Amino acid sequence: MLDAAVGCLAEIGWAGSTVDLVAERAGVSRDAARHHFPTREALFTAAVLHVSESRMAETRRRAAKLPRGPARTEAVVRMLVETYQGTEFAAAVQLWAAAANDPALRSHVLPLEERMDREAHRAALELLDADESVPGVRESVQATLDLARGMGLAGLLADDRARRGRVIAQWARTLDGVLTGR
Amino acid sequence: MLDAAVGCLAEIGWAGSTVDLVAERAGVSRDAARHHFPTREALFTAAVLHVSESRMAETRRRAAKLPRGPARTEAVVRMLVETYQGTEFAAAVQLWAAAANDPALRSHVLPLEERMDREAHRAALELLDADESVPGVRESVQATLDLARGMGLAGLLADDRARRGRVIAQWARTLDGVLTGR
Repeated sequence: MLDAAVGCLAEIGWAGSTVDLVAERAGVSRDAARHHFPTREALFTAAVLHVSESRMAETRRRAAKLPRGPARTEAVVRMLVETYQGTEFAAAVQLWAAAANDPALRSHVLPLEERMDREAHRAALELLDADESVPGVRESVQATLDLARGMGLAGLLADDRARRGRVIAQWARTLDGVLTGR
Repeated sequence: MLDAAVGCLAEIGWAGSTVDLVAERAGVSRDAARHHFPTREALFTAAVLHVSESRMAETRRRAAKLPRGPARTEAVVRMLVETYQGTEFAAAVQLWAAAANDPALRSHVLPLEERMDREAHRAALELLDADESVPGVRESVQATLDLARGMGLAGLLADDRARRGRVIAQWARTLDGVLTGR
């Protein structure tokens, strides 16, 4: 049901996304769906959190296998950027855009955003083997996540992966310099 | 009328934004409004382009007064980031999010996005006094704009300007190193 909710949000946006529609798509009865998710806000924020967490967990698993060394930084940046692409990110943008004009939704989305940011920051620090006590490291890791978010928005309407690849390669070189204190 | 359209889009989103509503807000007759802008797509893309261009022109004017030297890079990065904040950016996000699920709107928004990206890139190169023939410079300038876009999205729901300021200061140091070939 949570995957169906994310697909629904990404495809048709907040205005048309309802608990009943998601129940229908997921093959769940309306009553059962409404029992678990009494409001649209509850369903769609839970769904975006769920896919974001599974995606970040998968990134951690894949990145854990990468050998240490100079190529690791670039591979990790590439993976972090990928977590802000595709259906999951498209769904999140729909939710963020709707929350900007809807106080009830916004009060659900703000803690969700905070939690997702905190988890992304922690994962990035770990995977980049980053030491936050080194000056500039914390900010450079945050900048990497802002970059990834910006690339997600750039990739929302058009496939710009070739450009993105070149920017990531250069970004990873400078980030590696900061991480290693060069 | 274009400013009213941007305010309308930022405040109530694409679903509720119509030519008639903007005409009413701008104190223009419906007939005149419909004559100039026969479709919603035409009105709102023209409006987002207009405010984006005036904002970038203002950034150029302000940045041109900055003295050359190490502090200039940070000041310019700060200004570029600011062009992706506020009502103008909130309106653009509403348009982008709606275009993701609406082919008619998307065909208007894609050329608009391309044009805005091209102009932002050109302005950034000029203001940063960047030489694209130096390896890594082109990509680092593009990264600056992706970063700015990501910070815009982060700033859509919550005011995170303190965090943003620290990240900008660090990125400007790194970027300055790339620009000066250090």
